[in-house]
Amino acid sequence: MRALVWNGAELRLTERTAPAATDGMAVVRVHLAGVCRTDLEIVKGYMGFTGVLGHEFVGTVAVGPDGWRDERVVAEINFECGACDTCLRGLGRHCPHRRVLGIEGADGAFAEYVAVPVRNLHRVPDGVADEAAVFTEPLAAAFEIFEQIEIPAGKRVVVLGDGRLGLLVAQVLDRTGARVLLAGKHPAKLAIAAARGIETALVGDGPPAPAGLVIEATGSIDGLRLALDVVEPRGTLVLKSTIAGSPSVDLSPLVIKEISLVGSRCGPFPPALSLLANEEVDVRPLVSARLPLARADEALRRASVPGALKVLIDAR
Amino acid sequence: MRALVWNGAELRLTERTAPAATDGMAVVRVHLAGVCRTDLEIVKGYMGFTGVLGHEFVGTVAVGPDGWRDERVVAEINFECGACDTCLRGLGRHCPHRRVLGIEGADGAFAEYVAVPVRNLHRVPDGVADEAAVFTEPLAAAFEIFEQIEIPAGKRVVVLGDGRLGLLVAQVLDRTGARVLLAGKHPAKLAIAAARGIETALVGDGPPAPAGLVIEATGSIDGLRLALDVVEPRGTLVLKSTIAGSPSVDLSPLVIKEISLVGSRCGPFPPALSLLANEEVDVRPLVSARLPLARADEALRRASVPGALKVLIDAR
Repeated sequence: MRALVWNGAELRLTERTAPAATDGMAVVRVHLAGVCRTDLEIVKGYMGFTGVLGHEFVGTVAVGPDGWRDERVVAEINFECGACDTCLRGLGRHCPHRRVLGIEGADGAFAEYVAVPVRNLHRVPDGVADEAAVFTEPLAAAFEIFEQIEIPAGKRVVVLGDGRLGLLVAQVLDRTGARVLLAGKHPAKLAIAAARGIETALVGDGPPAPAGLVIEATGSIDGLRLALDVVEPRGTLVLKSTIAGSPSVDLSPLVIKEISLVGSRCGPFPPALSLLANEEVDVRPLVSARLPLARADEALRRASVPGALKVLIDAR
Repeated sequence: MRALVWNGAELRLTERTAPAATDGMAVVRVHLAGVCRTDLEIVKGYMGFTGVLGHEFVGTVAVGPDGWRDERVVAEINFECGACDTCLRGLGRHCPHRRVLGIEGADGAFAEYVAVPVRNLHRVPDGVADEAAVFTEPLAAAFEIFEQIEIPAGKRVVVLGDGRLGLLVAQVLDRTGARVLLAGKHPAKLAIAAARGIETALVGDGPPAPAGLVIEATGSIDGLRLALDVVEPRGTLVLKSTIAGSPSVDLSPLVIKEISLVGSRCGPFPPALSLLANEEVDVRPLVSARLPLARADEALRRASVPGALKVLIDAR
């Protein structure tokens, strides 16, 4: 099969043997895969990963147990051991022995076939097109916020960052009853949220009014600095994306304002799939390009252009 | 009266007029005052404060309303406006218009007399000596943790830093039922906690075992890095002291491990006074020197020597 492989030095479309369905694993024929900022970080050296990239995908089970074959599926990306203390506490996504699809120890989905644990599979409801289902993983990451903090209905929330993740987070929070303000730098991207009835603000027009809950989704140190400024005393700041490297940052506002800074990563798939099935979130305007697997390396380049939204790789 | 004044360039014992008891204020004759790391930071430029330094003290009300005169008191250091939204929400310690004793907009307690709002006063129980009462403010800061997070009895907590603050925090957590491990670099300081039955560990002997709750009380970037390493996935890291400047720090563990980083500052005085009254915390071994007000500048130098614990200034 063809796969986009990062060998630590270069990215190359490679012919390799399709994965086999070893114990507990299924092999999925990939339909569509999405390029994430993490993929772009990996080719800069993040995580030291080598292998097939890609962790956002939708496909059909080619090899797997009865009941799963030919099902259209998405899959959670953390492959837990299922036996350690962390897993037994229900925190399998944090299993210290975990492999992570296309990120750590497990080949990813920018390929014709991908192997994932059967326990990680989720059926895609019939009404959800591949073009929507491929957003399940990043949408689940938005839902993770609810597993970590309580957000009362009507709560004012500022989401910083109008990229792919910020636009998903803003829509999820809006649909679950928060009063959302999405602040970003790109009028065209803010318009996507505004079309869904979400209040937006251009960061250049001055900082948003202080809020008790701020979601940092820019992944930049400037975003974090602004977030520390915007969050109210005793407020909560959710860090929804990693900031590369070891940036210089004045952490004294954390203590002086007694802020709670909550790191937030992968989330639960079922509520994300429900939202897609009920068409309560619109992901179509988030696609900026769609390229065949044969041009997967170009897809990564397109995704790294400033202002790009989601770039999809079509593996069929 | 004599007072230790920081003019932005030098620290000098100065003769100045004693404060008057304006509306809502009391004038307190200072008995003892304690030197805090914040005082040492201010003379390096922190907060841009100029005036009389000092915010930890015990004294006797010299001028004040009936019922308060001649009472032995300690005082909370945040002077709230009492009228803004933040104050009305009960968060007066975060009032955006606040003055802070010896730190921002209000002369402090390294003086013969100090003026504080009557609402900030707390009577010192008879059984609590001045030498113990002067620790009320830093001890209250330890109690602040309980206003921010729940700590179930028996919870394993690692306190990083065997300085003044770490030793107080470890004792408070121990007395309130947590299973505390105090990790530090100074055998002599760790021995103070060990004498109270608290488990201790030398940081040089390797990092402490992972814990769900870590309290960072070193005030150093190395301490924060170690804390990020020690805290378990989905765990809580309380940042109990500001770290000077804008250090370089890899924040990705926050997101990958989904850590909650909780900044924590000033706390409630009543539980601190209770603990002192019940002799449930031993502050006497924390005093490394006691100097008269006439040598207050020397007191600050002594407090800044590595390894120093609390240095007291006797203003009587």
